[in-house]
Amino acid sequence: MSESKNKQMHLGAFLFQVGHHIAAWRYPETDTSGLLSHEFYERFAQTAERGKFDMIFLADTLAVVNRAGTGIKHTVTVRPEPITLLSYLSGVTEKIGLAATVSTTYNEPYNLAREFSTLDHLSGGRAAWNVVTSGRDDEARNFSHAKHPEHEQRYERAREFVDVASALWDSWEDEAIAGDKVSGDFADPFKVHEIHHRGAHFAVRGPLNLPRSPQGRPVVIQAGASSTGQHLAAETAEVVFTAWQTIEEAKHFYNSVKSLAVQYGRSPDDIKIMPGIFPVIGATEEEAREKEALLQQLVVPEVGLSMLTASLGVDLSGYPLDGPLPELPDVEQINGGKSRFQLVADMARREGLTIRQLMYRVTGARGHRTIYGTPVQIADQLEQWFVEGACDGFNIMPPYLPGGLEEFVDLVIPELQRRGLFRTEYRGSTLRDHLGLARPLSRYRSGYEASTIIH
Amino acid sequence: MSESKNKQMHLGAFLFQVGHHIAAWRYPETDTSGLLSHEFYERFAQTAERGKFDMIFLADTLAVVNRAGTGIKHTVTVRPEPITLLSYLSGVTEKIGLAATVSTTYNEPYNLAREFSTLDHLSGGRAAWNVVTSGRDDEARNFSHAKHPEHEQRYERAREFVDVASALWDSWEDEAIAGDKVSGDFADPFKVHEIHHRGAHFAVRGPLNLPRSPQGRPVVIQAGASSTGQHLAAETAEVVFTAWQTIEEAKHFYNSVKSLAVQYGRSPDDIKIMPGIFPVIGATEEEAREKEALLQQLVVPEVGLSMLTASLGVDLSGYPLDGPLPELPDVEQINGGKSRFQLVADMARREGLTIRQLMYRVTGARGHRTIYGTPVQIADQLEQWFVEGACDGFNIMPPYLPGGLEEFVDLVIPELQRRGLFRTEYRGSTLRDHLGLARPLSRYRSGYEASTIIH
Repeated sequence: MSESKNKQMHLGAFLFQVGHHIAAWRYPETDTSGLLSHEFYERFAQTAERGKFDMIFLADTLAVVNRAGTGIKHTVTVRPEPITLLSYLSGVTEKIGLAATVSTTYNEPYNLAREFSTLDHLSGGRAAWNVVTSGRDDEARNFSHAKHPEHEQRYERAREFVDVASALWDSWEDEAIAGDKVSGDFADPFKVHEIHHRGAHFAVRGPLNLPRSPQGRPVVIQAGASSTGQHLAAETAEVVFTAWQTIEEAKHFYNSVKSLAVQYGRSPDDIKIMPGIFPVIGATEEEAREKEALLQQLVVPEVGLSMLTASLGVDLSGYPLDGPLPELPDVEQINGGKSRFQLVADMARREGLTIRQLMYRVTGARGHRTIYGTPVQIADQLEQWFVEGACDGFNIMPPYLPGGLEEFVDLVIPELQRRGLFRTEYRGSTLRDHLGLARPLSRYRSGYEASTIIH
Repeated sequence: MSESKNKQMHLGAFLFQVGHHIAAWRYPETDTSGLLSHEFYERFAQTAERGKFDMIFLADTLAVVNRAGTGIKHTVTVRPEPITLLSYLSGVTEKIGLAATVSTTYNEPYNLAREFSTLDHLSGGRAAWNVVTSGRDDEARNFSHAKHPEHEQRYERAREFVDVASALWDSWEDEAIAGDKVSGDFADPFKVHEIHHRGAHFAVRGPLNLPRSPQGRPVVIQAGASSTGQHLAAETAEVVFTAWQTIEEAKHFYNSVKSLAVQYGRSPDDIKIMPGIFPVIGATEEEAREKEALLQQLVVPEVGLSMLTASLGVDLSGYPLDGPLPELPDVEQINGGKSRFQLVADMARREGLTIRQLMYRVTGARGHRTIYGTPVQIADQLEQWFVEGACDGFNIMPPYLPGGLEEFVDLVIPELQRRGLFRTEYRGSTLRDHLGLARPLSRYRSGYEASTIIH
């Protein structure tokens, strides 16, 4: 089991409730009482760290999603606040990266910059921020908005938000603290900078009330496959979380984002592209299929249909479950989750799926790629995408927890390690070390090139 | 050392940077390198828990305070984000309460309610929220406001904010989760409530995306001794953090707030009043005085003068340090820190202090009461205020850290325990247990009396 000098894949362990499948909580092995206890989350994080994952990755939604009145009754609508949870988990792990999804639409950059800086300090450089703009009217209504803001406006705010947060993280140069008890000089005021940001959405003076953190800035992750989303990612993201069904589409996206990054003056290696993968693992391929069939049986039909309706923006009640989809709206009419819409619509078109078949895709992998099989078959499929240039790694979405992650760590990771595709030990101590990302210089650092200053 | 059946005092360990004294970081024993490492905070929290404190209590400011251009150079302007820090600390402690200061002026109720609910769940019922409205233009400028909002407007928003957050914490009734795998019923939709709040400052639909937490709601703490502040406290607070120099003033305030609470339909025992205390402990009284003299010597004079200027709203440059204060403005002209202004002005008047003497009061206890002496003398002074009905306990503000807290825990706490004034073991597991506060019923609970519903 010698570790190869080859390029290594990067892996994130995606934490979504008690598993990625909408019926995960009904799966026999799942212990739902854990959902509100720290032990459940601790076990998840420590299992991922045992597997040498680059990071754990927390999804988020700023509302109870009660689709068609079935969500509260039949699904797990519980969502601990991600930074609060990760901060707790930083104390029970040592090396693994800690990524939290936080919305730019319903937060203030000064608060967010402090939270992530605090997490990066406490964890010794393991914080990452998954930048999202939120996508639901449900969320808007919890934040004094009648409707969710439009796509372009959200992205404009997001770009400005990331810029302000980055400036705040840079506002103390790395050498700003003197700590000289004799002279009484705690910090060098010439190395602590007001940022004087004035934009369309924010006016922030700064500086942040925290010194620069171990990683300089937390790692910035983004999703969003729309054209606007791709540009924002190419300009500012260090990890791109994405979803593709076919290797051709994934390769196309990979090359497109990497080329765009070069246009923004960055190296292709400065961005790691990690699609989501929903692995259903069995001792045999047959066993894996049976496992998925069991999960599908546990889906309450109204729930499945309401999820599909939400993805497609079309009321499907009245259509036969085993018949084809009706005509779909144009993607331009979708506000929030444009990429999800496109994915699901393409999947239906490409594979000629019935409503029921499509429903099971949405309730399980939620638009991400499902792979089935033995640990060797799973490793084969990950290897193919990785070596053929469709991605730099994967976000692993276990169907149910904790079992789904434990199987991956105990059975698939060793197979990837044997093939020299994945680390057997952490080499560094920060998430940037794991991902092979450089620690950014402060934009305020004397001698830092003006051309690379963002604002 | 038998524990008495007498009423017990409540103690909070106040965490302000590396100690409450502005020059704490220059104190020989203080290790400033710890300021950004989790070990420093862990030691603080574990020491307080060893001393059986009710809670640790984190101060906060949403800006770097660079008074007269001296703050960054000569003082510790570093402030980790309190909830992120407490969440980490919940994992390295078992019983002690965890109180965070968070502003209602620069946050959204839905975000705040989630963060505290998550902390309360992860910690097994140990979260408390110190509600503040923030007091500085420095803070406003980090949140896209040119100026800090006026006092009455901030309190109006604060009252509404607390009401929205409380409704969100109540939005899942205690028995809402069914978790029935067989029927597929995860939760009872009739026990999960939209809150439909519409007020002058917020419109929030809810429900929260977290079930009711172990304490029902986190403990609500408030400061603010203005008339508006007292009313808000009497109506909504469970702990009042306050500052008094004399036992007469403290008794007056104690009786006033408890009577107001009764007017709001509450019991006097539903509110615990805990003034701040700055204890300087020595083997002899002489040694304690020398310790304070050393700390005062370490104050950079421009820093001391700028702090006094900020408290009083008067430019003191040009006045002789060893002369009297000039005429002061009326309290009505002060926006933010009205109580601090009144305290400092009264102190100067009552004791006829020079500018320098007053400056040392502000740089040390920051308006709170300083007590000096041997452990026995310290215990005597705490006992007097407690038994004479001036308070229900104290927030202890160690001059420097970690030493100042360790001395209190090792020398003063045993003396209080010997006198039967303080617990020798935690009896319960939640902060409400420690404080003797009832767990509130959900306002949405069937059968809950309409007259006690706040909104």
